[in-house]
Amino acid sequence: MASWDPYTRGCPSRDLLDQIGSKWAVLVLGELGKHGACRFTRLRQRLAGVSEKMLTQTLRTLERDGLVRRTVYPEVPPHVEYDLTPLGQTLRGPLRVLTQWSVEHVGEVLAARQEYDVRAEGTA
Amino acid sequence: MASWDPYTRGCPSRDLLDQIGSKWAVLVLGELGKHGACRFTRLRQRLAGVSEKMLTQTLRTLERDGLVRRTVYPEVPPHVEYDLTPLGQTLRGPLRVLTQWSVEHVGEVLAARQEYDVRAEGTA
Repeated sequence: MASWDPYTRGCPSRDLLDQIGSKWAVLVLGELGKHGACRFTRLRQRLAGVSEKMLTQTLRTLERDGLVRRTVYPEVPPHVEYDLTPLGQTLRGPLRVLTQWSVEHVGEVLAARQEYDVRAEGTA
Repeated sequence: MASWDPYTRGCPSRDLLDQIGSKWAVLVLGELGKHGACRFTRLRQRLAGVSEKMLTQTLRTLERDGLVRRTVYPEVPPHVEYDLTPLGQTLRGPLRVLTQWSVEHVGEVLAARQEYDVRAEGTA
């Protein structure tokens, strides 16, 4: 088995980090993890403000990466649902912790930005 | 205190997710967390392949967000070091878990991609 290291140039674990840490991926996986199988329309409502194109692209990337499963139900009319694969389930914990951090600490980050900008103005 | 929710359009916790989950931020914070204060040149060597411009921009964003502290030592010649702030320290755990996930599961993700691409070819 190869040994992966995101600090190594060209290692696929590096770009994987980018993908799993992008806001739309985090929010899609979080939503599917919390509420289970879901249709596109419902996901789009839940991720307020996401464009149809961006959500389509995010879901396709997650499906290709083996994190999300797309199931077509041959009903009349047919419908499509998305849910987490077993691999996607293993990512729930890490992403929940990351999301919690951003919610808990965004106030401090906003304060830091304000302070930084005031300092930058002072030296301009 | 406001209640932050990355599922809400325009909530700053959403874009913060993107920032803290970007590969360069994850790798910079991981390196500083592991090895402590560090100069730009050393960081750039450690993050093999990062451009000077991208590293500068990543460090500035992290500094503005209050996660990284930039210290100028007035020596001859002067030198600059970067390390984690107390706030940055709180992000070490979440990012370590995310990085570990990407290293542990990238093999499965690569296999899933290959399978997806073969299937896509089959239906093309």
